[in-house]
Amino acid sequence: MPSAWIISIGNELLIGRVVNTNAAWLARKLTYLGYQVRRIVVVPDDEAEIVAAFREALSKADLVVSTGGLGPTPDDITNLAAAKALGVDAVLDETAKEWVLEKYRQRGYQATPERLKMAYIPRGAKPLYNSAGVAPGIWAEQGGKILLILPGVPKEMEAIFEEQAEPLLRARGPGLCFAEDSFYLAGVPEADLSPILREALKIDERIYVKSHPKGHETGAPLEEIHIYGSAGNCDEARNLVAKVRQFLVDEIWRRFPQAKLTPQPQSG
Amino acid sequence: MPSAWIISIGNELLIGRVVNTNAAWLARKLTYLGYQVRRIVVVPDDEAEIVAAFREALSKADLVVSTGGLGPTPDDITNLAAAKALGVDAVLDETAKEWVLEKYRQRGYQATPERLKMAYIPRGAKPLYNSAGVAPGIWAEQGGKILLILPGVPKEMEAIFEEQAEPLLRARGPGLCFAEDSFYLAGVPEADLSPILREALKIDERIYVKSHPKGHETGAPLEEIHIYGSAGNCDEARNLVAKVRQFLVDEIWRRFPQAKLTPQPQSG
Repeated sequence: MPSAWIISIGNELLIGRVVNTNAAWLARKLTYLGYQVRRIVVVPDDEAEIVAAFREALSKADLVVSTGGLGPTPDDITNLAAAKALGVDAVLDETAKEWVLEKYRQRGYQATPERLKMAYIPRGAKPLYNSAGVAPGIWAEQGGKILLILPGVPKEMEAIFEEQAEPLLRARGPGLCFAEDSFYLAGVPEADLSPILREALKIDERIYVKSHPKGHETGAPLEEIHIYGSAGNCDEARNLVAKVRQFLVDEIWRRFPQAKLTPQPQSG
Repeated sequence: MPSAWIISIGNELLIGRVVNTNAAWLARKLTYLGYQVRRIVVVPDDEAEIVAAFREALSKADLVVSTGGLGPTPDDITNLAAAKALGVDAVLDETAKEWVLEKYRQRGYQATPERLKMAYIPRGAKPLYNSAGVAPGIWAEQGGKILLILPGVPKEMEAIFEEQAEPLLRARGPGLCFAEDSFYLAGVPEADLSPILREALKIDERIYVKSHPKGHETGAPLEEIHIYGSAGNCDEARNLVAKVRQFLVDEIWRRFPQAKLTPQPQSG
């Protein structure tokens, strides 16, 4: 199963001023595209840290997706750091330059070095049009690996991903289908579920089961049981998830006749 | 300035099912305690990955804080992985065992291997009482580094941090004070702010300035300008932030007399 790493760039994430919703959004997208996201790494606006994170990610994962650091201010250095990590020059891309300057021109703004900076991309890479803002995304390939660079503003990140990157990834991607299901279980402490989960995990290595405690382990035990995994096609993935779910329900009721199973958490 | 890494453990974060609010909460706490959070790393429920992440973090940071993987289910392996990373055995801690079993005993539950698993900690480490759940946190020290291990359930993570870990960190911590301020700026594209931010960043290396675009760069430009940093005492930190803020306001008004500055974003 092809692997992906997500690199989130920005001091605001490391001082806890911003919650990293971008990484969760991308993780979900990549999972559904058939990638196994193995790591999310948050690094500061520091060139050496960004270059090191890109290099490590490219050595470990098939796909690396970054967010942040593509704007016009002095701490926006992701395009230059990416070029360093890839071992190539950053060059002014004519297409990206036209996109960037046209957006400013429409409002009567001139070209400045800060604006042009956003049109630099690693040599050999391809700019991705930003329909929701100015800074283009970047698509680079090297040694069979893909590096996808997106802005940090969520609506711009999402627009470039969905309009530009997702079709490319779908065409080039692993062709796996992800499926999932979940239910809530009340009245059984998580510790007592453990042997059942252990058996369920043995049914098929493509399917994973995880319980998430939502109540109080010894007071009012409540868990969300989440079953998920990917297979070669969607029917197979759904059938595997259904099979594991059936096993779990049967075993829980066999061992804990007082257990309450519901599709959503219920009070009482 | 002492550095910290945050290690978030859990497949649910890597499939985008859960947004990593724990990391943001901890990042803010650690920043205010005077630590510079240099990296957040999210890893799956996989022993080799957790051990590798702990080892790398302990080699790079003064303080490592993890969340997740302390419960009673088969994928909860953080206490054992931490022992491996530290190169010591995981041992049944008598204090932790008493805490765990007492919580189950109060509700009429017996001791089982899954319940006792939560009382294992790396040899030489210290358990931290969990007032909001069962699984204790862990405080370990090695070679001058601190490893703080917390559960993934937010209310349990926050309870152990605030009641047990924060007093220890405050007593042992760097003794720096963090300060911050921010304002909103409408009517100036972020690209045109860039030279002013560059100058502001030179005023004092302890203070950082970052602009966060909230509007549309060429349509209706709106930025939040955030000024922050740490100094030896709180007065000094606040004064440095105020000085940089004053410089920014003066320079923005000098160069852009039409700029609108507000404490909060305003429509129109």
